[in-house]
Amino acid sequence: MKISGQSIIGFHSASNAGPSFGATNPRTGESLSPDFFAAGTDEVNLAASLAHEAFAIYSLISGREKGKFLRAIAAKIEGAVDELVERAEQESALPKTRLQGETARTCGQLRLFAEVVEEGSWVMARIDRADAGRKPAPRPDLRSMLHPLGPVVVFGASNFPLAFSVAGGDTASALAAGNPVIVKGHPAHPGTSQLVGQLLRESVQDCGLPEGVFSLLLDSGTSVGVALVKHPLVKAVGFTGSHNAGRALMDLAAARPEPIPVFAEMSSTNPVFILPGALRQSGDDLATGTYASLTMGAGQFCTKPGLLFLPENGDAATFIDKLGKLVAESRQFNLLTSGIRSAYQSATARRQTEPGVKLLAARRAASDDQEFGVGAALFEADSQSFLRNPELAAEVFGPATLVVRHSTRAQVLELARKLGGHLTATIHGTEADLREFSDLLAILKTKVGRLVFNGFPTGVEVSHAMVHGGPYPSTSDGRSTSVGSGAIFRFCRPVCYQGFPEATLPDELRDSNPLGIWRMLDGEMTRKPTTG
Amino acid sequence: MKISGQSIIGFHSASNAGPSFGATNPRTGESLSPDFFAAGTDEVNLAASLAHEAFAIYSLISGREKGKFLRAIAAKIEGAVDELVERAEQESALPKTRLQGETARTCGQLRLFAEVVEEGSWVMARIDRADAGRKPAPRPDLRSMLHPLGPVVVFGASNFPLAFSVAGGDTASALAAGNPVIVKGHPAHPGTSQLVGQLLRESVQDCGLPEGVFSLLLDSGTSVGVALVKHPLVKAVGFTGSHNAGRALMDLAAARPEPIPVFAEMSSTNPVFILPGALRQSGDDLATGTYASLTMGAGQFCTKPGLLFLPENGDAATFIDKLGKLVAESRQFNLLTSGIRSAYQSATARRQTEPGVKLLAARRAASDDQEFGVGAALFEADSQSFLRNPELAAEVFGPATLVVRHSTRAQVLELARKLGGHLTATIHGTEADLREFSDLLAILKTKVGRLVFNGFPTGVEVSHAMVHGGPYPSTSDGRSTSVGSGAIFRFCRPVCYQGFPEATLPDELRDSNPLGIWRMLDGEMTRKPTTG
Repeated sequence: MKISGQSIIGFHSASNAGPSFGATNPRTGESLSPDFFAAGTDEVNLAASLAHEAFAIYSLISGREKGKFLRAIAAKIEGAVDELVERAEQESALPKTRLQGETARTCGQLRLFAEVVEEGSWVMARIDRADAGRKPAPRPDLRSMLHPLGPVVVFGASNFPLAFSVAGGDTASALAAGNPVIVKGHPAHPGTSQLVGQLLRESVQDCGLPEGVFSLLLDSGTSVGVALVKHPLVKAVGFTGSHNAGRALMDLAAARPEPIPVFAEMSSTNPVFILPGALRQSGDDLATGTYASLTMGAGQFCTKPGLLFLPENGDAATFIDKLGKLVAESRQFNLLTSGIRSAYQSATARRQTEPGVKLLAARRAASDDQEFGVGAALFEADSQSFLRNPELAAEVFGPATLVVRHSTRAQVLELARKLGGHLTATIHGTEADLREFSDLLAILKTKVGRLVFNGFPTGVEVSHAMVHGGPYPSTSDGRSTSVGSGAIFRFCRPVCYQGFPEATLPDELRDSNPLGIWRMLDGEMTRKPTTG
Repeated sequence: MKISGQSIIGFHSASNAGPSFGATNPRTGESLSPDFFAAGTDEVNLAASLAHEAFAIYSLISGREKGKFLRAIAAKIEGAVDELVERAEQESALPKTRLQGETARTCGQLRLFAEVVEEGSWVMARIDRADAGRKPAPRPDLRSMLHPLGPVVVFGASNFPLAFSVAGGDTASALAAGNPVIVKGHPAHPGTSQLVGQLLRESVQDCGLPEGVFSLLLDSGTSVGVALVKHPLVKAVGFTGSHNAGRALMDLAAARPEPIPVFAEMSSTNPVFILPGALRQSGDDLATGTYASLTMGAGQFCTKPGLLFLPENGDAATFIDKLGKLVAESRQFNLLTSGIRSAYQSATARRQTEPGVKLLAARRAASDDQEFGVGAALFEADSQSFLRNPELAAEVFGPATLVVRHSTRAQVLELARKLGGHLTATIHGTEADLREFSDLLAILKTKVGRLVFNGFPTGVEVSHAMVHGGPYPSTSDGRSTSVGSGAIFRFCRPVCYQGFPEATLPDELRDSNPLGIWRMLDGEMTRKPTTG
């Protein structure tokens, strides 16, 4: 495939009249060809109009047709895996194996949503039958189900050039719900974005869908994103990225004449509580596992363990020694962009100057160190300083983590209560630990979207029960998940049909239940037809 | 019961140190005793702290216990029905029979939510079982379910002094989900609010629940409401009222350091399309039915038909004549407050001055007219003026409606496309009409939360399939309903448990499924235990 550098507006390529920008290899600092061209206001308007027009058709197609479309995208991505991985490696410095895995995950996500819409029960169909004899007034026939919202804008994420970008989880779930999607490509990987965008466009064409179902707009700055979020024909936004950018989008969307929902997954420090019994039993393994989780993807996962709460005892000291050694002896890591690299360098430098914080370990420099690499870092803060300084609970994007030790049971609960919203919280413990710290679990339950026991928070499973979401500031709306099949619920709303004849109802709500889906019939779940 | 005039903070009465205000009988303009006292900042803070403390306990109680509590409230309200209706009649000018019906609805709502939480499947439990042998990495055990959000602030509505006020739908659904509730009482019916508040407090006490589960704060202005919405311990808001107030709350909540969801049901004109076949077959009945729906509750229902789209033909002329006669001969109506009365009078006066609008009929004055009564009004706008002037699609709260006639099929579709978000849209038609105008249905589907066929939008059923919500500006979040059992989903969020031992899991997620609820097990709905 050719990378033209132009945005994709429906079936057309945008002009190359806008300001140009380039991609960079973050491992070497070298510029990558070709040049890319930022979309302009006309192109934003055109993409939005096409999406709006497409919605009238795409919102009504069957689950089977949507499934076919999602599977077509997956097949095309699999067919181009080598090309995609090669370009993504150049643009992201992520290792090939990781990118191969990410491609598989991207296709897996698309197929999971295909299954969900083909099966069809996700629409939460509810039928309350009429009762003509009810007093004081007859009860009408009421049937409701989920319908899509309208055009959805998806912002590609820097840290998942495939699985959370052009054809990633937000796109897959929005398309599955029946919404056209306009992707704002991430400027760190415009080539990867354009390759995937072409595959997506081809899938729209192959499936005979209206062209506005998908567009990809490129931009190295913020103006295209801002224009998209403010566009009156756009009805929802999906975003994965920094807290500041996410909050800016939330504020923009809330200030619109017609406010729209923004699902932003923004920042999380993913606190880990290692309880005394676990530390005694398996401190060594926990240190190795923590190091692996901390440095996986160069510490650039949303669920990186960035806060470690440990008891003040000898087992903890041994654990910290071991973790510190692994950090000191670690290899260099390449971060996703030069901006992320300098943010990591200043955040780790600043952290050392915060009151009550010390650097326990940092990677030792070596003679063959590369200019663009960074090292892992292990910090410690005393618990009083941690409680006083909210900065210490903030995410440092990259392979750094912070230890906080507590000397009493009351203190660990106080530390937990003080936490803000995070994507995950982890407890390592024996069953006896869990019993002793049951109130810790009760507190953490109110702080996060996912609780992990004796595992590591990285490695987010794409499944039905997954929740990748949590109270603000980890996301904009803790009532949602951006990973797993539940992500589809973000992009739809219930519509009720009162008194409509069978022939005019959507298949999902017909008496005969032609799709055989699960429905709530007069309050009871069933797959039976309504008759009888 | 005594009406003390004081706010209710947990098990205590607030001081009477704040500014006092009085209730007024809108039928006579007379002041009602006693005086009421506005809550102050300290009382807002105390109510929020108590609610926060109560959440730690109340969020964890079983569905059976929550059901018992909701049923206790309903029983107490039923026991006090005469006293409540008497006071509500004085404060709202709504007729006794209507208020008796509304009390029954209030208790019905509480019991519907009791059923929902006793049955338990509402938590959307999902279990994905572990697979230790999966490649490249083992699959962990993942289990998710809905958990409550935290303290919810509910604003009492003027037009439902019982069913959408202190113990109304928002309160019932928030309590059912496991959230403490702080009600900001509507100043139009503070006595009714306090009576219900006392019953609610007694129910909290009788059920042995922590006192912060419920508070009622009174205020005649906006400062208590603003302080509540900005309070950091408050996690969500439910509101029914005017567009301006609802939008102000949305903006406040969005600007918080931690933004929170606001579920505001704000304004709707509920367009009605009467198609040619229906008009020919039953124009006379439709005129009578439309008049009844338009004037029900003095035109103060959220679902009042405020826009009538008719073809330009003789049948429509006959329909309009008949509806105009009913309007001209109608009795006087008493509106809920003097503010609502003067807003209605100025809105109807202003409407007559809008370009392209004429007054087709208005109630004829009579010699025994009362000072505080108002009359119904029927306006017509030509379709071009309607399309040009968004003011004409805005809600006029009270017994007024606007006819717009269309002369071509294209025009009716254009009128429909131009509509903003509404709670409902209604189509009157024969089956042949529906076939001919299937594209009208497709357009209206994107505009509203509920579509009504050959019925009237007023008379909102409280059931599982009801959707009382719609795209902005009818509500703040069209992805929700404020009526029916689906209203519970507003006040909760999913939490996932990864790898937790059976004994530490909530009952809803245990292998044995001790509650016998419907769960999604590896993608399939079942009530079976996970074993086997």
